[in-house]
Amino acid sequence: MAILFPATAEFIGALYAPCRFEGSVNDLEVEGTVPTELEGTFIQVAPDPAYPPMLANDIFFNGDGAVTAFRFSGGHVDFQRRYVETDRLKAHRAARRSLHGIYRNPFTDDPAVAGASATTANTNVIAFGDHLLALKEDSLPVALDPVTLETIGNWDFAGQIGDGPFTAHPKRDPEDGSLLAFGYEARGIASRDIVYYEFDAIGCKRRETWVEAPYAGMVHDFAVTPNFVIFPVLPATADLERIMAGGRHFEWQAELDFQFGIMRRGGDGSDIRWLKAPNCFQAHVLNAFETGDLIHLDMPSASGNVFPFFPEANGSSPLAHELHYELTRWTFDLANPGEPPLRTTLYDAPCEFPRCDERVVGRPYRHAIMLGCNMRLFASERMGPPPWQFFNQLVRLDLSTGLAESWCGGDAECFQEPTFVPRGPSAAEGDGFILALLNHLESATTELVILDTRDIAQGPVATVRLPLRLRMSLHGSWVATPPFPKP
Amino acid sequence: MAILFPATAEFIGALYAPCRFEGSVNDLEVEGTVPTELEGTFIQVAPDPAYPPMLANDIFFNGDGAVTAFRFSGGHVDFQRRYVETDRLKAHRAARRSLHGIYRNPFTDDPAVAGASATTANTNVIAFGDHLLALKEDSLPVALDPVTLETIGNWDFAGQIGDGPFTAHPKRDPEDGSLLAFGYEARGIASRDIVYYEFDAIGCKRRETWVEAPYAGMVHDFAVTPNFVIFPVLPATADLERIMAGGRHFEWQAELDFQFGIMRRGGDGSDIRWLKAPNCFQAHVLNAFETGDLIHLDMPSASGNVFPFFPEANGSSPLAHELHYELTRWTFDLANPGEPPLRTTLYDAPCEFPRCDERVVGRPYRHAIMLGCNMRLFASERMGPPPWQFFNQLVRLDLSTGLAESWCGGDAECFQEPTFVPRGPSAAEGDGFILALLNHLESATTELVILDTRDIAQGPVATVRLPLRLRMSLHGSWVATPPFPKP
Repeated sequence: MAILFPATAEFIGALYAPCRFEGSVNDLEVEGTVPTELEGTFIQVAPDPAYPPMLANDIFFNGDGAVTAFRFSGGHVDFQRRYVETDRLKAHRAARRSLHGIYRNPFTDDPAVAGASATTANTNVIAFGDHLLALKEDSLPVALDPVTLETIGNWDFAGQIGDGPFTAHPKRDPEDGSLLAFGYEARGIASRDIVYYEFDAIGCKRRETWVEAPYAGMVHDFAVTPNFVIFPVLPATADLERIMAGGRHFEWQAELDFQFGIMRRGGDGSDIRWLKAPNCFQAHVLNAFETGDLIHLDMPSASGNVFPFFPEANGSSPLAHELHYELTRWTFDLANPGEPPLRTTLYDAPCEFPRCDERVVGRPYRHAIMLGCNMRLFASERMGPPPWQFFNQLVRLDLSTGLAESWCGGDAECFQEPTFVPRGPSAAEGDGFILALLNHLESATTELVILDTRDIAQGPVATVRLPLRLRMSLHGSWVATPPFPKP
Repeated sequence: MAILFPATAEFIGALYAPCRFEGSVNDLEVEGTVPTELEGTFIQVAPDPAYPPMLANDIFFNGDGAVTAFRFSGGHVDFQRRYVETDRLKAHRAARRSLHGIYRNPFTDDPAVAGASATTANTNVIAFGDHLLALKEDSLPVALDPVTLETIGNWDFAGQIGDGPFTAHPKRDPEDGSLLAFGYEARGIASRDIVYYEFDAIGCKRRETWVEAPYAGMVHDFAVTPNFVIFPVLPATADLERIMAGGRHFEWQAELDFQFGIMRRGGDGSDIRWLKAPNCFQAHVLNAFETGDLIHLDMPSASGNVFPFFPEANGSSPLAHELHYELTRWTFDLANPGEPPLRTTLYDAPCEFPRCDERVVGRPYRHAIMLGCNMRLFASERMGPPPWQFFNQLVRLDLSTGLAESWCGGDAECFQEPTFVPRGPSAAEGDGFILALLNHLESATTELVILDTRDIAQGPVATVRLPLRLRMSLHGSWVATPPFPKP
């Protein structure tokens, strides 16, 4: 009996062929010199299907979460990788095959796994308390041992939050270390309910607020400022009837406005106000902050649907090069609640995976890092439908001047999400290092590049070579040893 | 500080760039169908340097042993790889650098490791008793846990054999499961002493015999028949003075004859007789057997030195295509002890890594498997000095007819050592499956191919795909679950 992954775009090539190994490599090869300021762990997670999909047309986002840790010490870098042993993965390994159907549709799963957690824990991994938490927005976090990466189990904060969804993009309050999070579709599949949580630095729930979105759209990320929470709701919507009939979890609705929900952190949610923007695609939040009565929210934006695997009801979706991409600032004037948000372009080119210095989350800030793509490449034939492999630029944007510096890996290279590491406990905002995995598409090899923010254009100060290829990943973070205090 | 392997031929490319990972992949992808008869583990070991060499011009044979296990069950194949945690590797990991100098020369090591075992355990791995034994001919075996591959430690058979050398090619007596082994340079570096051991199936030493070779040459492998032991001594010789001065352990002596030492198993070694053959290179034994007063010994043979890293004293060594290669049968007539051995050519083409059905070791037999190379490729520019990457044929030779069947992976492919697995407990000799790793040199990928001996030419009945590249390895074996009784 053959055991093979499908030869579709989501499962082949230097970026998307599954890797699936778990293990370690001590002392990775290093070209250049790893800055001695880097003492800690770069952790990140990739969807990496452990078994070939049970149903055809499976998508990248449906892969099992595999966590990678790069441990930095004294100029040396050790590599470690392990699957999150979710209930789903344990069931698949016991059966030696996939038992789950299409993305986030339990009605297409094998009856053997009915009722069990279906989380893939594949979207982000953060350090919180004594654990790592592997996150997928449709389920509870999964706690991991931070040293061995062994899975501890589904993490409901000691019973404080039931077993509902939990965002893959929680925020840490840089003042007090509290964890700010939310879940959407929070009263069941395709429900419009959103629940907002605040936990103190040791995980005690301090606030839980329920609101209702205008439609059951995807809410992949959010923003929290000292006084406000902002939920960006995408016009990629869930429909229970369709899902029960075996259809896609999300479909794009080109006729719907994009919606921002803004509510006070201290209230009961009844003050939430929904503000509209023209139909567009925005998933990731770079940062948000308040100035007087204004709230500013910065997000990469595309003029239409970038997820062809969640097309419109008629099956259509635009080609990537047919859309306009930019980094957008949305400004909401709380003194004029009836006004639509003001839109400003911060960076007028394709960009994604935006990151700020985590010490300024929710605060006025100056520096962004993100992935970009040179326009020549963007217009080329490589720019077909996803899965994408065109992020060949690391970009650092100075929001105070609008000036962008970048380093280009080459045309046949693709970066994975960058992570910023401060130069030290008292470093100025945005002064430090950028870490990013870089896939070489022709040789099918992967490196971890380290750039100094003081000179992006010169390229990496150190290139950490891997003896194995890593699949495209989603999100991750830097965990300092010991954690840096706030500046 | 850069941490990089040298860009010399021994450390680059799809076959020789170090891999260094430890870990596992569950349920490897399978093209075709894995025969259900394959229930067990294919174990093998590769030299794979954990740290860049301390000194320049390091050689492939000096790498740390990394054991790979392919576990077959119900048509599924799991992959597992782990370093043998030798004293040497533990010291390197503690120091985060290599502390050992050139191959088998302790006088070039860092003083920090003086007196400690320097075994790399990198040449072969076998199952014996409750353990796996990782073997390197200059040191004791290292015992491993057969399930986890964790290292237990240096293995002196409960103190029965001191801490001397132990061949990487011991034989199992197919009648009683006893382990037959030897060590050379057995009374110290460059000594001419050879010690022969027999252990019963549970590891109790039943015999220890000491003999002296005519010169201190390499004795990589040997042969045991029901009544005799044969030591093939290569004219690659060790010299203590040279080694103490920091020179190579071995140098080729083109003026020396090749020597075969033949002794009775039951004696005290005083009956050993040394028989000469013209200077040539022969390292691996395919098999040996007795017919009346004759002993037949089958070995791949080259007309000169194939190890340029062990050149003549003047530094010279032939290019690979300047030599003649074949599979040779040496026949020794015990009734005419003065006669030189009779030489017969069994296969007149380049071949190496010969294997027989292990159930006929030391007995008359019919089938050989080995790696070959098509002559067009052999004459091409790829045939430079080692490390070699030209084994692009799997060959099965019927010694009763002289007919060879082969399967060719292609010009840009290189096999690693093949292993034979009987079709079942009562299968005829040589009837079963051939397992071999296959490296694709252009894509830098590795597969495990499985061929049925009943139709070699059709190619693999199953191809097991690996998501990572494996470095060139040395030797391994099949461990059935449960072990097959003798036919």
